[in-house]
Amino acid sequence: MISSRSKRTINLFARLPGVGEKTAQRYLLYLLTAEDELAAELGRELVELRQHLRPCDLCGNIAEIDSLEAAAICTICSDSKRDKTLLCVVARVHDLLAIERAGSMRGRYFVLGKLLSPLEGVGPEDLPIERLLVRVKKEGIQEIICATPPSVDGEATALLLKRELAPFGVTLSRIASGVPHGGDLEFADPITMGRALAGRQRL
Amino acid sequence: MISSRSKRTINLFARLPGVGEKTAQRYLLYLLTAEDELAAELGRELVELRQHLRPCDLCGNIAEIDSLEAAAICTICSDSKRDKTLLCVVARVHDLLAIERAGSMRGRYFVLGKLLSPLEGVGPEDLPIERLLVRVKKEGIQEIICATPPSVDGEATALLLKRELAPFGVTLSRIASGVPHGGDLEFADPITMGRALAGRQRL
Ligand SMILES: [Zn+2]
Ligand SMILES: [Zn+2]
Repeated sequence: MISSRSKRTINLFARLPGVGEKTAQRYLLYLLTAEDELAAELGRELVELRQHLRPCDLCGNIAEIDSLEAAAICTICSDSKRDKTLLCVVARVHDLLAIERAGSMRGRYFVLGKLLSPLEGVGPEDLPIERLLVRVKKEGIQEIICATPPSVDGEATALLLKRELAPFGVTLSRIASGVPHGGDLEFADPITMGRALAGRQRL
Repeated sequence: MISSRSKRTINLFARLPGVGEKTAQRYLLYLLTAEDELAAELGRELVELRQHLRPCDLCGNIAEIDSLEAAAICTICSDSKRDKTLLCVVARVHDLLAIERAGSMRGRYFVLGKLLSPLEGVGPEDLPIERLLVRVKKEGIQEIICATPPSVDGEATALLLKRELAPFGVTLSRIASGVPHGGDLEFADPITMGRALAGRQRL
């Protein structure tokens, strides 16, 4: 008893990550009743989205482009104040944005897009290691921070990077894992607590 | 360090109910990387949304319209198999859709749009009571089910309806409140449990 057009809009919204039918329906009702112009504004933005935004050719971050033929270079890669000898390797663009919010990474990035995962059938050949090695050689990168997540797959990927980068003599480090800032020790899981202890630093 | 166009899209998404900056960012990244056509499809749908969908002139449900000048009558109101003497009064379109999913309400609806709320300064004059009374008179409605939520505001609204409808001699009922289907009695809050007891029916 809902019109076919509403149904179509709901189905499109429901293809977004984490959006079920009820959430999609809530978005639709809001757009129909609450803000007069929002549906059209958001619609115009999305129609042209992929003509203007694309993964950066160098790092994988979101880059704004002028035309479909133009090279896509993001604001981080084109920022001359960034340290070009320091590269931070992350799994996803989300991680890059989280690190940028912290504001202390002064180098550039490389987004792997996925993690090594034997269980899910993702092997070394599925990761853009070759592209990473080319950058290391071409750009004279001296230090690499591996910021893959502190998970089994994240650790496996870090070890793969270590092996692949060994011949290049770059300094490779791994972000620290431990009890989060503001976190209560009582609620830290045993693995986190183990890492916090193993990674202890002298005061 | 995110492009101004990404920022604009994120800000538009974040105006949807329950969507914060991180969720909006997740939607954007998904549209840019996962499904080639989804952004454009959803965009086209939203650009025209309010030219094709509008609240039903009679009940407030979503109605599909052919032109901006046309009357908006939803599929429920125009369904001749529905009992025209039975009306179900709800607070929001969401509630109407939830009742439709149950599939047992054979009459039509009236969406109030809001509930009486002395605390939030919503008085009887803010509710479309006059429009409801006009429908009752004109359409010869004999029975009204009040399906406002079992909350303070929902009960207050039910009492207001009772007072306003008294002169019309319609049968007015209120949906039952109690322990939900599949709900564990152990976890029912005291008010719900009190209602389940007070509303008990002979077996
Ligand atoms: Zn880049
Ligand atoms: Zn209707």
